[in-house]
Amino acid sequence: MTSLEKLDQLIHATLGELTPGITHEINNPLQFIAGNIHYLNEHFKKISELMEGLQQILGTNDKKASRSETTISAADMEKLKKLFSATDPDFSLTEIPLSLQECFEGINRISDITDAVRKISTGRESDDCNVNELVSACMILIQNKLKYAARVTLSLCPQNPVINCFRNQIFLVIMIILKKSLSNLLTIKKNSQHGWLGEIILSVAIEDNKVNITISDNAIVQSWHDKTNENLNLLSEMENIIEEHNGEIIMTENSDGSIYRLFFPLK
Amino acid sequence: MTSLEKLDQLIHATLGELTPGITHEINNPLQFIAGNIHYLNEHFKKISELMEGLQQILGTNDKKASRSETTISAADMEKLKKLFSATDPDFSLTEIPLSLQECFEGINRISDITDAVRKISTGRESDDCNVNELVSACMILIQNKLKYAARVTLSLCPQNPVINCFRNQIFLVIMIILKKSLSNLLTIKKNSQHGWLGEIILSVAIEDNKVNITISDNAIVQSWHDKTNENLNLLSEMENIIEEHNGEIIMTENSDGSIYRLFFPLK
Repeated sequence: MTSLEKLDQLIHATLGELTPGITHEINNPLQFIAGNIHYLNEHFKKISELMEGLQQILGTNDKKASRSETTISAADMEKLKKLFSATDPDFSLTEIPLSLQECFEGINRISDITDAVRKISTGRESDDCNVNELVSACMILIQNKLKYAARVTLSLCPQNPVINCFRNQIFLVIMIILKKSLSNLLTIKKNSQHGWLGEIILSVAIEDNKVNITISDNAIVQSWHDKTNENLNLLSEMENIIEEHNGEIIMTENSDGSIYRLFFPLK
Repeated sequence: MTSLEKLDQLIHATLGELTPGITHEINNPLQFIAGNIHYLNEHFKKISELMEGLQQILGTNDKKASRSETTISAADMEKLKKLFSATDPDFSLTEIPLSLQECFEGINRISDITDAVRKISTGRESDDCNVNELVSACMILIQNKLKYAARVTLSLCPQNPVINCFRNQIFLVIMIILKKSLSNLLTIKKNSQHGWLGEIILSVAIEDNKVNITISDNAIVQSWHDKTNENLNLLSEMENIIEEHNGEIIMTENSDGSIYRLFFPLK
């Protein structure tokens, strides 16, 4: 394998490791949508009966001419009341819009996830990339793994800075750091009292005409300087990518946790 | 990396390579559902106005006692007709159930995809696995890549055979074969007249008390015997997995295409 093929494989492996969590996060709102559609379907049957009743009583468009009554019979009135009451009007006037609203929310949640995969995917060329969107996409894709280990704070940059990059490579760099944080946080969590929650802060900012992505956590367990082959390999992949993008990384590890500061040229 | 970690990385990389296609296939039915919910929402506003009108005219539950009229005024009748006609009743009685039906279909399509990821994922242990489901899941996950290159025929086994396996490893074996077929088919397609479509046949059967998975295609371009390092590596990973599962593989490559016959002990 060429080094580019190796890098591609590492990027795919990083995404593939997240995929079961990604589809799990898609499945939750999907079940939510399904429940609401089921409810709407059941409910519409009653409304449908009411509308068919009204059609008979008031006459359809076709029959309008022949049914110009200005009132309705007592029997029809009784029927209409019954059909209307069967739709549980108070409930449905409140619940149907809520149900539809919940469907929209579920669709948006799924859409955010499928968008995130698109946003971290690169074709053959590097392109201009909104760093806020890229960092948010990374967070969305790893949320299923992070949510049991850490409270995540995301602080984006109002100026929406853009860098020219291979999105999938920057995704890899952010994921290598986040996975390391996650693994450290999980180690601490295992040895801590129930209820301990880690902390990860991700921020995007502009500093001296450069885009700065900072990832910090409150866990320091295993340093990069534990030079296992695995760690060395990831560290060198990360440094290569940053160099190729004319960027810079400053890592600080102390007893409060780790801070990774990435800098890339502002487009 | 240990050989198990290498295998895991290869499995993740194989899944990760498919992930953008997987989320793309999720996004299509999602947009379809979104369009339908949007339609239902717009339509329900009209129905809602009708129901509010009816509530005023017929009286709500609370007001029932005080509104025991057995008929309605000419003005109310006119109002009711107007509100009813605004719901476009002929259209909505037909279209709303269709819209809901389309939502259900979209949900099922997405659900099939998220299920497929779950079905090819293994925890720490091997488990009993329905081979029809596993093979179907593989097809669903690669469909986005296959659909422009080949017509796929899937022939499952009515007896629903079960094997004990690491699902993710069997997924890898099937994907290595399918990716090789796909790459061969795309090479032929590129050199063929417009409209040429490859053919892949996947079948599950029971043979001599063994489960047989057969994958065949109508493309023979690059044989496994082109011993690039990449090919040799995949071939040896595949053979290791099959051996670990007490299985067997018989490959036939001739001018009509390739046939891969996998055999695993029936549980």
